[in-house]
This record gives sequence, C-alpha cells and structure tokens, in this order.
Amino acid sequence: MKNWEKNVRKVVPYVPGEQPKEDHLIKLNTNENPYPPSPKAEQCLRELEISAFRKYPDPECRELIQAISRAYGVPESRIFAGVGSDDVLAMLFLTFFHGTAPILFPDITYSFYDVWAELLRIPYETVPLDEEFAIRPGDYQRENGGIIFPNPNAPTGRLLSLDLIKEILDANSDSIVIVDEAYIDFGGESALPLIDQYENLIVVRTFSKSYSMAGMRIGYAFGQEHLISYLNDVKFSFNSYTMNLPALKIGAAVISDQEYLSMTKNKIIKTREWFSKEMRALGFSFSESASNFLFVTHEKVDAKELFEALKKAHIYVRHFRKPRIDQYLRITIGTDEEMQTLVAFLKEYL
Amino acid sequence: MKNWEKNVRKVVPYVPGEQPKEDHLIKLNTNENPYPPSPKAEQCLRELEISAFRKYPDPECRELIQAISRAYGVPESRIFAGVGSDDVLAMLFLTFFHGTAPILFPDITYSFYDVWAELLRIPYETVPLDEEFAIRPGDYQRENGGIIFPNPNAPTGRLLSLDLIKEILDANSDSIVIVDEAYIDFGGESALPLIDQYENLIVVRTFSKSYSMAGMRIGYAFGQEHLISYLNDVKFSFNSYTMNLPALKIGAAVISDQEYLSMTKNKIIKTREWFSKEMRALGFSFSESASNFLFVTHEKVDAKELFEALKKAHIYVRHFRKPRIDQYLRITIGTDEEMQTLVAFLKEYL
Repeated sequence: MKNWEKNVRKVVPYVPGEQPKEDHLIKLNTNENPYPPSPKAEQCLRELEISAFRKYPDPECRELIQAISRAYGVPESRIFAGVGSDDVLAMLFLTFFHGTAPILFPDITYSFYDVWAELLRIPYETVPLDEEFAIRPGDYQRENGGIIFPNPNAPTGRLLSLDLIKEILDANSDSIVIVDEAYIDFGGESALPLIDQYENLIVVRTFSKSYSMAGMRIGYAFGQEHLISYLNDVKFSFNSYTMNLPALKIGAAVISDQEYLSMTKNKIIKTREWFSKEMRALGFSFSESASNFLFVTHEKVDAKELFEALKKAHIYVRHFRKPRIDQYLRITIGTDEEMQTLVAFLKEYL
Repeated sequence: MKNWEKNVRKVVPYVPGEQPKEDHLIKLNTNENPYPPSPKAEQCLRELEISAFRKYPDPECRELIQAISRAYGVPESRIFAGVGSDDVLAMLFLTFFHGTAPILFPDITYSFYDVWAELLRIPYETVPLDEEFAIRPGDYQRENGGIIFPNPNAPTGRLLSLDLIKEILDANSDSIVIVDEAYIDFGGESALPLIDQYENLIVVRTFSKSYSMAGMRIGYAFGQEHLISYLNDVKFSFNSYTMNLPALKIGAAVISDQEYLSMTKNKIIKTREWFSKEMRALGFSFSESASNFLFVTHEKVDAKELFEALKKAHIYVRHFRKPRIDQYLRITIGTDEEMQTLVAFLKEYL
C-alpha cells in the first residue's frame, strides 16, 4: 500500500437500482412515478432564461422554500432543501448523528442508512422488524444516539400509525428522531403536524416519487427552527450552492400544483389496489402497501429466478440479496397497462 | 443544553458572497462570468423533455463525463463530476484527507478549505504565503496528511508555475495533492498533463467561471483511475444521484463548445489587461492576475470604506475581514462597460 492510501476513507458504496439503457422496457425497479410531472413544470422550463445561468443560484433556495411553505402551511424557517432526499438525509446524518451511542434503524429498511453510518463512522444497531415486517415501538426504548426509519417503510411498504410514532418520540426525547416520508403521499398519515409538539422530530420528503421529479433531485425536510438552523450550518459548511436554477424554479412550480399531485397519486393508488387483488389471486403474499410499490413473496416461486425471468421479458423489478428478504421482490406501481402486462406474464409464468 | 444537542455537529459555516436582490447593479463580488453561456446551452435547454424528469438521472453521469473526456482528451475513467467544484472538493476532503497528520494549505486562499477541515474534523495547518502573496514550494516539505491550493490562487489571483507545482509533488509522493483550477482558463498553465506522471495528483475544475454556468452547479476533477475509484465509492456512499438531468445535458452541450469558451475568456482577459492599467494609473497595487478578478490595495484608501462606498453606488465587490488582506478588495472582471463605470467612480472617489 502506498503511504497516501493510509489517509483514504475506504467504504462500500450504496448500489442504486439499475437504470437500464434499453428502450421499450417496463421499469418497475426504482419506484419512479409513471406519470409526467405537473404541466406547470413544462411551462416553467420553457420560461427559463439561459442568460440567468451565468450567476450563482440563491444559496438559501428562497423561491423553492417559499413554495414548499405555501404548499404545506409550514413557516419557511422550518424547511430545509437539498439535492434529493438522499442529500437531505446525508446532511442529517452528518449534523445530528455525531454522538457515541449507536443510532437505531430497522433491520429491513432503506439500504442507504447503514452506508451513511459506515461512511461517517457513526455507530449503529439495527432493530429487527417483527415477523410481519412491522416496526415495534417498544424496541426503540433503549439508549441511542438517534433514530431513523421510513414511513411507510421501504422496501416493505408498511405504514406505522401516528400513535406508534408518538410512542417512539415520547420514549426518546433525548434523541433526534427522523421520519423519512419519501412515500407518504401514497396513503399514509404524515408526522408533519407533530413537529409543533416535538422539538427533536425531523420529517423528510422528496420530489422524486409523488411529484414525479426524480430527474430533478429535490428533497426537503421539516423541523423546528433550531434543528433547521443546525442543519443549515452544516450545509453551508459543505456546499453553499447545492440547488441549481432549474431545480429551484421548476421545483417551486411543481409543488404549487397540489391538484395535479392529488390526481396522479390517486391514479397510482387505484392501480395499486387493482394490482394487489390480482397478485393475491396469483398466490403472492404481502402486507398492505401504503406506498407506490408492493413487496411480494410467493411460496412456490424463487424470487431471484422470477426476477431474472422478468428481466428477460424486459420487465425490471427490484430484488435485494439480503437476509430475511431474499425471497421477496419490490415492484413499483406503474401505469395500468404496465401492470396488466406484468400480471399477464405472471399468469403465464406460474 | 438538551441531551440530543450533545450529538449535534456544531460548525461555523462558510459565508458565500452576497447575492443581492436589487436590479441594475454592477455585480463584481462572486467572480461570475459577465457573458451568457454558449448558445449550445440555449438549444439544449429548449430540447429538454419534461416527461424525462419522472425518472432518475444517470448516477454515473456518463453523458457529461463523455463530453468532458472529449473536450480535454482524458479517459472517462479519470474524470469525476459533482454539484459545483464545492461538492467535488467536499468529496475530496471526505475521501482523501482521512489521516491524522495535518493537511496543508496557504494562509490566504479559498476560505472554504478551513471550513471543510473544521466540519470533517480534519487536522490542518496553514502555510503563510510570502510577502508578495506567492506560494513557496519549500514550505510544503514537511509531514502532512495532504495538500491543497488553488492555482491561480484565490483571492490573490497569483499563478504558480508547473515547475513549482512539480517541486511540491516531488516532495510529497506520500500525500494526495489537490490543485484547484477554478480560474485556470483565464491565463494559467494547467497541471492536468501531470496526472499521467503523478499518481497522487488531483486537478479540480468548474463550470461556474469560464463556462459561465454558476447557476447550473457543475464541477469536475481529473486524476488517475485508482483515485477516481476511491472518490466514486465515497460519492456513492453519500448521494448516488447528485447531478440532475438539466446539469447533465446542458453541461455536456456547453463543454463541447470550446470555441465559445476561447472567445469569451479572451474577451475577459482583454478587459482585465485594460482594467489593470487603469487601476495602476489610479495608484492601486496588485500582483499580475491570471484569473477573472484583481486583488487590489491602495496606500491612501481604506479597503472597507471603499467597499462600502462602492456598494452605495450599486457596485458590489468582495472584501474579506481577515488578517493580512483586510486592506484588499477582490474585484471580478465584468464587461468593458461595467469596468469603465467602476473606473469612473474610482477617479471621482480618489
């Protein structure tokens, strides 16, 4: 080993879902929205002036944060924005998980949490979900340096009720508790109103799923002023200008169109309900999903084999080679037509 | 203090140059390019399809990296891209400055270096520039955990020759050496060809200055494959999808137009040469600048007072309240017209 290599931070990176290059495929592997963003995005895009790009964007992201504030009725001082919720979460780990006690998160969850912990050398312990993949609040009643979980959880799609979230918050007033609500619009009750009451709660959201803007990289977080202030100190110590001009402008336009959000999410929920029935009829088991995906298993089918067969048929879903879930597939809810093609394939396959 | 506050990483953030909201001002405070980006940017922007935004962008940034590769004749495997050079530099600090010996950088330099070091708890020592604000390679011949400096240096604008850079590299084969070339296009010789020869050299660039794309947030770095590989491991452990679709597409279009780059940078250099003469005639002293700004001082004028007077006249320049340079102003080179207005003001003021 060269001497300079001793100073290298060596890590095993997160592996994002495949972004295949081929056309004419059915892509149900990264929980993207099958519908385009609000027409307001198009309008805003057409109005962008290229001459404005020579200047730095607003480092405080005011236009975007004002739009988020209006959409959710939350004061601007309680809002933070970043380059996708991954950037927001990375900043949160960096800012708030700087202690010596282990942070806690479920054993089956977003597979980036342990990667951030490893990267930033944060001690952590995973807390097993129960047999039905539910979070048990009682398991979070022990010393910790912080708590994070998605709600609904990913890749399970299971929702935790606000009462149970409160149970976790009440038992952990000494810790920062982060609720990652990437999928909340697809049927869950948000913890957002709880930020008034809990000074240690942070709620994270994204434009990538319900707002159909994965390609624009916008995430945001809500929390009391003192939390957002600490977070901004770290953000301004890392990269002052994270959000580029198109993200600030088009993001603001898209989030102002709550009617369109409501319409498209309802379409996805309707497709999910139909698809769920079909999948049960085909013998798949899964918990009820509050997200834009199902997390399914089948007694008589090997998940990895089915994953490969689907891929050959140009249908991409997600398979995780991980303990407890290697017999499961995560399937994003696409359009009706896409899900019908998938169901037809499965009928044939089984 | 609340218990959760003990786990907060507390930092003093970097303060970016002011982005004033008023119109009709002359903005010479953040080294932006006075000319719009290449016309290819406009064309590319008009061709963006909003429906593409629903999907995640390519996490490997291939289209952009291929365009950078073509523009500079460097293999794709030796290129890294990030959200402005600040993001690239933050990732470099995180990846390569993970040792216990102090990293070294000049005492007068980009004021983000010490902020990153403080944020990431990296030990550092600053190395004084000489009386004429030059870097002395001999000062970098001591134990260290890494070295970083801009070339030309900011805010001094002074260039270090390739021979002196080699002197630093030869004396530090056990350290990663980062040359931050944000301003190199305005008259310096790049260290890029040295990456063939030095396995520990990283060269950082940006779209924000010479390419007139500060608003798009694109930075990049060159280095041998093994360095880019370590860097990518950390990037994919922090945020897989950093570059949004407009940045990938428009960035690729802009960097392909080397003719436009050459034309606009020559205009800026010409303006700088004229402005330099005028400023010397007015009694200002400064080193020759190889960048798109001058770093000036005047025996008979208090820098802070002049800064305030200029601001009242709607001319923004940059003043740093820091040891050794509090009698200096950093003035970005704008259009001829802007610089003429500034010179006229100064003639009046003096």
